Amino acid sequence: MARHTLEYPKDATNTVKRYNAHAVYALETIHRIVNTCQILHVSFNTPSQPFPVTLPMIGQMGSFDRPSADLGDPLELYLHGYVSSRMMNTCRSSDSGDADSGEPQGMPVCIAASHVDGLVLTLTSYSHNYNYRSTVLFGYATHVTDEAEKLYAMELITNSVVPDRWRHTRLPPTKAEIQSTGILKVRIASGSAKISAGQASDDKTDMSNEAMLDSTWTGVLPIYHTMGDPMPSSYNRVDVPAHVTEFANDFNTDNRQLSLDAAKGERRAL
Amino acid sequence: MARHTLEYPKDATNTVKRYNAHAVYALETIHRIVNTCQILHVSFNTPSQPFPVTLPMIGQMGSFDRPSADLGDPLELYLHGYVSSRMMNTCRSSDSGDADSGEPQGMPVCIAASHVDGLVLTLTSYSHNYNYRSTVLFGYATHVTDEAEKLYAMELITNSVVPDRWRHTRLPPTKAEIQSTGILKVRIASGSAKISAGQASDDKTDMSNEAMLDSTWTGVLPIYHTMGDPMPSSYNRVDVPAHVTEFANDFNTDNRQLSLDAAKGERRAL
Repeated sequence: MARHTLEYPKDATNTVKRYNAHAVYALETIHRIVNTCQILHVSFNTPSQPFPVTLPMIGQMGSFDRPSADLGDPLELYLHGYVSSRMMNTCRSSDSGDADSGEPQGMPVCIAASHVDGLVLTLTSYSHNYNYRSTVLFGYATHVTDEAEKLYAMELITNSVVPDRWRHTRLPPTKAEIQSTGILKVRIASGSAKISAGQASDDKTDMSNEAMLDSTWTGVLPIYHTMGDPMPSSYNRVDVPAHVTEFANDFNTDNRQLSLDAAKGERRAL
Repeated sequence: MARHTLEYPKDATNTVKRYNAHAVYALETIHRIVNTCQILHVSFNTPSQPFPVTLPMIGQMGSFDRPSADLGDPLELYLHGYVSSRMMNTCRSSDSGDADSGEPQGMPVCIAASHVDGLVLTLTSYSHNYNYRSTVLFGYATHVTDEAEKLYAMELITNSVVPDRWRHTRLPPTKAEIQSTGILKVRIASGSAKISAGQASDDKTDMSNEAMLDSTWTGVLPIYHTMGDPMPSSYNRVDVPAHVTEFANDFNTDNRQLSLDAAKGERRAL
């Protein structure tokens, strides 16, 4: 790749302080972790309580202004949410705008996406570890009100659940469907990822403990998401289509391989 | 079960407003979702930025004062974290105490735990859905400093990763290991869960659309975590022990069955 690899700038918000050797700031890596995560955890504050509120949501990185943008380009995060939810209401009351620019500033949110790739079992409980890929993005969320952008986001998010699903559903969505679908757009301020992949590892003292070595199993238990056989609905009339079988095959092959590569200490290009 | 089923009281913080038919407040259900989740997303605020910060952590519900407590009893959440992390530092500065009681109030946190059980594909993108189990707990986090309680939590958390693993590791942990292991205890203020399980379902208008019914596959793609064959470390000398093989078998059987039951619209006792 000839072009420069873009990274989120390190600042006080996103700089990883613990195990910073695992830290990654490349946009492409971070965006891929988000886009392959089936549930994102979106956190925000409400004025009425001291706790942040976290909602599990479905979302995808994309660019309405430049739909052909790569994963390594600056992107926005589109989230699927409901207009009547607490989050939307809070967001709306934050839409009042930035005094300087007149632009809506949006609600400050933190988005977390995490994959577990394996359990690493060692001689001591202290050295036990996970193989994982996790990322956190910080940004400002606003409502999407433009209908064309909303349709772009609805298609993006539907196809993130099952690739190519959108054009296999009843189109176009009705006015009522579009209106009652809440879409949030998050303008990303910063982000970082942490990735851990590798075999079991113990410290020197324990590695010279022959009794422990002779009695304790050490290694990795690979973990990955699996998709089972498609289960047709009671009203289904058609065979499982290619866009579903291909997705299930890719999903199972890719997730398993990624977990096994991590257990061997290898990490395919992320 | 003769005794009363305990529930978290509904208040402004935890009451589910959207799709509240899916809402569950029973302690047992909520605690089980947390205890079977391999990564918890822990969110808190720092004074230096507008965004909440979310960290992926490992944790488990338990009771140091009453270790024999059931899942349906009031419990605390123990989290594994590092003393030098931003979270711990922020938490420490909140440990200053409640003026009224002299008790440490702790840092307000929100903990989210989510499982995806299946993708529900329907005739319209609008009716697409997930089968899932998710929960959110709100509470106050403090450092665990008492050594006996810290050891209790270390054992609890290690055995939550692989049941019975603790006594198969080198014991006891060294003073240095105990000292440099950060453990947070969260006193739970409230919580709720949302559970969705079921087959595909479309609305009346779409169900009378013969062309769509003749061309569109509808049904559930079950999703579950799978554990692959254990991969021994380069220095492992022993066969895979029973506590690992039994766990892997149970993990694979239970997760798959739960996902298939959800796809059929059944839900085993949670």
